[in-house]
Amino acid sequence: MFKESFDNLRTNSALVHNITNYVTVNDVANVLLAAGASPIMSDDIDDVADITAICGGLNINIGTLNGNTIPAMFAAGAKANALGHKILLDPVGAGASRLRTDTALDLMHKIHFDVIRGNISEIKTLATGSGTTKGVDADIADAVTEDSLESAVKFAKDLSKAAGSIIAITGAIDLVTDGDKCFVIRNGRPEMGLITGTGCQLSALMTAFIVANPDNCLESAAAAVCAMGLAGEIGWSRMQHGDGNSTYRNRIIDAVYNMTGDALEEGAKYEIK
Amino acid sequence: MFKESFDNLRTNSALVHNITNYVTVNDVANVLLAAGASPIMSDDIDDVADITAICGGLNINIGTLNGNTIPAMFAAGAKANALGHKILLDPVGAGASRLRTDTALDLMHKIHFDVIRGNISEIKTLATGSGTTKGVDADIADAVTEDSLESAVKFAKDLSKAAGSIIAITGAIDLVTDGDKCFVIRNGRPEMGLITGTGCQLSALMTAFIVANPDNCLESAAAAVCAMGLAGEIGWSRMQHGDGNSTYRNRIIDAVYNMTGDALEEGAKYEIK
Amino acid sequence: MFKESFDNLRTNSALVHNITNYVTVNDVANVLLAAGASPIMSDDIDDVADITAICGGLNINIGTLNGNTIPAMFAAGAKANALGHKILLDPVGAGASRLRTDTALDLMHKIHFDVIRGNISEIKTLATGSGTTKGVDADIADAVTEDSLESAVKFAKDLSKAAGSIIAITGAIDLVTDGDKCFVIRNGRPEMGLITGTGCQLSALMTAFIVANPDNCLESAAAAVCAMGLAGEIGWSRMQHGDGNSTYRNRIIDAVYNMTGDALEEGAKYEIK
Repeated sequence: MFKESFDNLRTNSALVHNITNYVTVNDVANVLLAAGASPIMSDDIDDVADITAICGGLNINIGTLNGNTIPAMFAAGAKANALGHKILLDPVGAGASRLRTDTALDLMHKIHFDVIRGNISEIKTLATGSGTTKGVDADIADAVTEDSLESAVKFAKDLSKAAGSIIAITGAIDLVTDGDKCFVIRNGRPEMGLITGTGCQLSALMTAFIVANPDNCLESAAAAVCAMGLAGEIGWSRMQHGDGNSTYRNRIIDAVYNMTGDALEEGAKYEIK
Repeated sequence: MFKESFDNLRTNSALVHNITNYVTVNDVANVLLAAGASPIMSDDIDDVADITAICGGLNINIGTLNGNTIPAMFAAGAKANALGHKILLDPVGAGASRLRTDTALDLMHKIHFDVIRGNISEIKTLATGSGTTKGVDADIADAVTEDSLESAVKFAKDLSKAAGSIIAITGAIDLVTDGDKCFVIRNGRPEMGLITGTGCQLSALMTAFIVANPDNCLESAAAAVCAMGLAGEIGWSRMQHGDGNSTYRNRIIDAVYNMTGDALEEGAKYEIK
Repeated sequence: MFKESFDNLRTNSALVHNITNYVTVNDVANVLLAAGASPIMSDDIDDVADITAICGGLNINIGTLNGNTIPAMFAAGAKANALGHKILLDPVGAGASRLRTDTALDLMHKIHFDVIRGNISEIKTLATGSGTTKGVDADIADAVTEDSLESAVKFAKDLSKAAGSIIAITGAIDLVTDGDKCFVIRNGRPEMGLITGTGCQLSALMTAFIVANPDNCLESAAAAVCAMGLAGEIGWSRMQHGDGNSTYRNRIIDAVYNMTGDALEEGAKYEIK
């Protein structure tokens, strides 16, 4: 199943419009290229509608939102909705500031997102309207663990139904649900959290996956999570003595570049709840 | 000939002002340093004139243009023209949106550029006023091939004469012409297209080459294309099992860092038409 | 002494708010993570006060300042001062343009900085109100050498007293002083200057060090300089034939990732004047 999703991405060359933060944007572009997709970045109010129109999907990431890019997010989102394009929201830092929380909530109200992907603190913020996000990282108190898994799955499913979007909550255990079915994914490495932008990369990759698999969004969003986690595992296995997070960053993107649908199918670790 | 161009760059320490996109800006800075040049980035309307004044050349790249940076491009360009500084335009995504096309055309009308460098779809857009650019990549239908080479050379020469700028069209086969003479270059690797920003890096490097060789712009612009392509070949030859586009990115910049004028002279693959 | 500073950073997980340039921001984030700190980037006037409030320290870097981010720097700085948070200024390019010089001076007048870190040309500009900074690199005529060391130490101490901030001047020889005591540091490699952003990384790292060691700012600021320089030495020792500045960039961050307090203590090369 995941094999087909990834093979479709490799062959269909999804063009993804990213309105994203300037911290991790280069890695976002390279991971899309590594997977066979094409990135374009555009965040000016006078540019985004044209750019979104020629793309297959839109990835909105609020990591370094500002007074100029916020209106561009709404304009691009409206255009993508009007054209029936796939669209994903990454609410980076929702809960860490009023502006981030309000912008993410307002985007959810005015734009229909196919997928919303964040860490547990960000997603809880979207569900409740306020949060305790510690910067851009999840609050440890929120973590999805084996103990809290059942309640976390229920929370994700409920939010998915309420929002009308696939919800992807990523962390040590990842959840991807359409309200009915929930993929519980255990790929990845804890060291991925010591690289900036693995979450941003995943959001971009997930957008590409759903663009390439428009009739199979839930499975392909889950496939993206497994692909990124598997790349983290493969990249880690290639680490040498003295390597650290900067080299690890390269090795993860390299692992996506060399990944095949078969390898993803074989390496994916998930159950469905 | 190319040896001298590169040796001049190594010894003259060209300072290049870049108004460029935030996607590939870090690689742009590092490739300039790798070649012996110095980068400075500045894109605010109140900052650019002072910065351009202390630099030897200006590299304008519209990859993430916006309402604040567009006026800064015009202001910096006017200052560079007034001072007789070298100036290059990289019309990223011209043809992909009205704003990009119009901005690039308007820049060409109001600023004199020593060189305009882009992919074939972008450059065709500049010639015709509209285009079919697929995001930031060239449309496959536009590609310069052995079959279309003669007509592409004529197109490039005609545009060069009309624009009064050296035109550099890069792709599988690269063309660099001043309207009279056209360098046809066959360095490089197709895998370079799977890294974000090799075109942006080339534009910056080319600016540095012409700053360091002010009386020899055509040859030094062609030398820059050969240098970037040769770095792509050398970088690829150092790839190990499991490496991908992220590592390749590093190896290309590393290859520029270690390149000598002699190696460039020897590795350059070109003919003149 | 430095061991304790670094061990505190490893265990205390400093959250650092960065208002920084888009050129080197990814490396800034990764070096903070490498050292055990957490980065958050935010530069919008409506976002910065909330973000600074949840962080332990604020790192202001004017490398790509603009009309939107300058007011955000003042707002964030005022908030950090009101909350008693640690705050550092990196006056990138002060002396290279009027806007950079004036902004840096105005920030110094309106905000109290715990540390100001720059190259000698930037710091001289702050002391005199104008300068000859060559882009973002120090003017060679300004360099701190063994011959000019005594007068440079006196200059740094005097400025520290006048500004009420720790002054860190980095270059071939680094000076870190609180006006009374001056650390003279000889870690590092000249090749670090051929990577964009080692200075920006150091400013971020230094902010994290002083956040984690609030009662020991001078020593921990000096420890940060030694740590970055030592990482440059370790990274260089791992360079292979054909590697260049791009790989070196990765190896330096990797070296921070693998550094221990003991290794820093042992590798630090400094005297106190």
